[in-house]
Amino acid sequence: MKTSVNRSLLVVGSVAFDDIDGPFGHHPRILGGSGSFFATAASYFTNKVAMVAVVGDDFPQEHLDFFESRGIDISGIEKASGDTFFWQGKYSDDLSSRETLDTRLGVFGDFDPKLSDSQKNSDLLFLGNIHPSLQTSVLGQVGTPLLIAADTMNFWIEGAKEDLLKTLAGVQTLIINDEEARELSGDFNLVQAAKKIRAMGPSTLVIKRGDAGAMLFYEGGNFFAPALPLEEPRDPTGAGDCFAGGFMGYLAQVEGDLGPERVRTAMIYGSVMASFSVEQFSLDGLKGLDETRIEERFELFRELARF
Amino acid sequence: MKTSVNRSLLVVGSVAFDDIDGPFGHHPRILGGSGSFFATAASYFTNKVAMVAVVGDDFPQEHLDFFESRGIDISGIEKASGDTFFWQGKYSDDLSSRETLDTRLGVFGDFDPKLSDSQKNSDLLFLGNIHPSLQTSVLGQVGTPLLIAADTMNFWIEGAKEDLLKTLAGVQTLIINDEEARELSGDFNLVQAAKKIRAMGPSTLVIKRGDAGAMLFYEGGNFFAPALPLEEPRDPTGAGDCFAGGFMGYLAQVEGDLGPERVRTAMIYGSVMASFSVEQFSLDGLKGLDETRIEERFELFRELARF
Repeated sequence: MKTSVNRSLLVVGSVAFDDIDGPFGHHPRILGGSGSFFATAASYFTNKVAMVAVVGDDFPQEHLDFFESRGIDISGIEKASGDTFFWQGKYSDDLSSRETLDTRLGVFGDFDPKLSDSQKNSDLLFLGNIHPSLQTSVLGQVGTPLLIAADTMNFWIEGAKEDLLKTLAGVQTLIINDEEARELSGDFNLVQAAKKIRAMGPSTLVIKRGDAGAMLFYEGGNFFAPALPLEEPRDPTGAGDCFAGGFMGYLAQVEGDLGPERVRTAMIYGSVMASFSVEQFSLDGLKGLDETRIEERFELFRELARF
Repeated sequence: MKTSVNRSLLVVGSVAFDDIDGPFGHHPRILGGSGSFFATAASYFTNKVAMVAVVGDDFPQEHLDFFESRGIDISGIEKASGDTFFWQGKYSDDLSSRETLDTRLGVFGDFDPKLSDSQKNSDLLFLGNIHPSLQTSVLGQVGTPLLIAADTMNFWIEGAKEDLLKTLAGVQTLIINDEEARELSGDFNLVQAAKKIRAMGPSTLVIKRGDAGAMLFYEGGNFFAPALPLEEPRDPTGAGDCFAGGFMGYLAQVEGDLGPERVRTAMIYGSVMASFSVEQFSLDGLKGLDETRIEERFELFRELARF
């Protein structure tokens, strides 16, 4: 998988404490956040991943050390006075739904990402799930990346639609889930939803469907990536960001152009990283991975889709 | 696709009048039933399809003529005194759910399938969604088919579990949807559900998931067949039976053994026939098909799954 190509990859997102309850027990105050999941997943593909995020003065050095151990450039993680973003959620017994019990923005409430000169010149940019006006602010700071991808969520679709539409106009690849695609487009049918969303800006749309895989609507037609059937998924938190991290990480290091064939393969590497993520809590499912394990799981996807 | 092999394929199922309401209008008294959908789909693969079913004296000759025009042996369709099985349903605006408004069994309430000698010696047998005790009765009549497959539904899982377990013990391939798999196994996770259901008898389990594709758990490992993204599905009624018809029809005419590779391909032909079916009401989506259109759509699935 690894090649001599090594494009720089910047993620602007959240770093958070998660408090997760569900059928596999209560896990208080574990490391989470879109930036954390994305960067860690991407770090298995390239050593030129940089994070822009904010943490509070309650954020332990060990988590920063972990990011650095993964070769991630954390010079863009600002340490502000106050508490780190906190999210508390409870999953249903079958993990099919979750309820937010508490959200405390803390220092994330004043997050105003400022990119350094080298960050402005990143080859690939991922805008994690943050307020669309912040995403647009980042778009205004960067040069002309090879690829700009973004995530969003229903909260912004409902509460900041105008800002979100501005962001989408500047994004090439949008990576969201099926519910978000339906709400953003106002259309239940995903083919029609994809048509409408692609008209908002992103030429490439990835619709994640959890254990039913992920769909790709783009210049190369339609592609349906399966999800690996897992016997005991434990925590879906961050799976979407790990998908995006594998997707973008693969594209950061692949030889040649980022054309349609590459994007299909990126969908599978995204699915691979998501499948590892849901097997454990926090980033534990990604820890201890190596190229061999990632390639072995990639082959499971080949076997799953082969006919 | 067509080969010189031509195994006989018997379906025991229902022939019905459907009354379908939904976002694409009200369609009263259209031809439906598991046997009708299955046999018509299968008829595009082999001319040795036979149906065992019952209709009332209200059943018009034109529908029988249609089956015969498809080369289907309808000598096993009994005409009884009374009304043909009637089902009335209403779909939600997004087609994601449906409500049963009326069910009138009519002559189907006394259905007691009796197989002729040639039917008893069928090479492949599909037990459509009828009472499990009738499915078991058919199993007691047949010789040793190469392959026995079956469908069932939540109504029987809830109301005739003991009978159903007897049926499953004699079935090699079970083709059901995700909700049915969850209810039959008592497990939400489909990998664990598959393990439990396969322990009930069927070595091969197909779990249909509508527009999220179909999963296969069998001796050849796991396989994930995509669903074709359709812009305007109109009526999901019978899609599962068309899937089964394409699946079994393909296996009826394929060269050589019915081993793991064949079963994967059968999943795709099943998906092809289901995709045609949902585009129109009743059997209209299947009418006018030919080998070229079926193969063209098969190639769309190849393109959809390719990476």
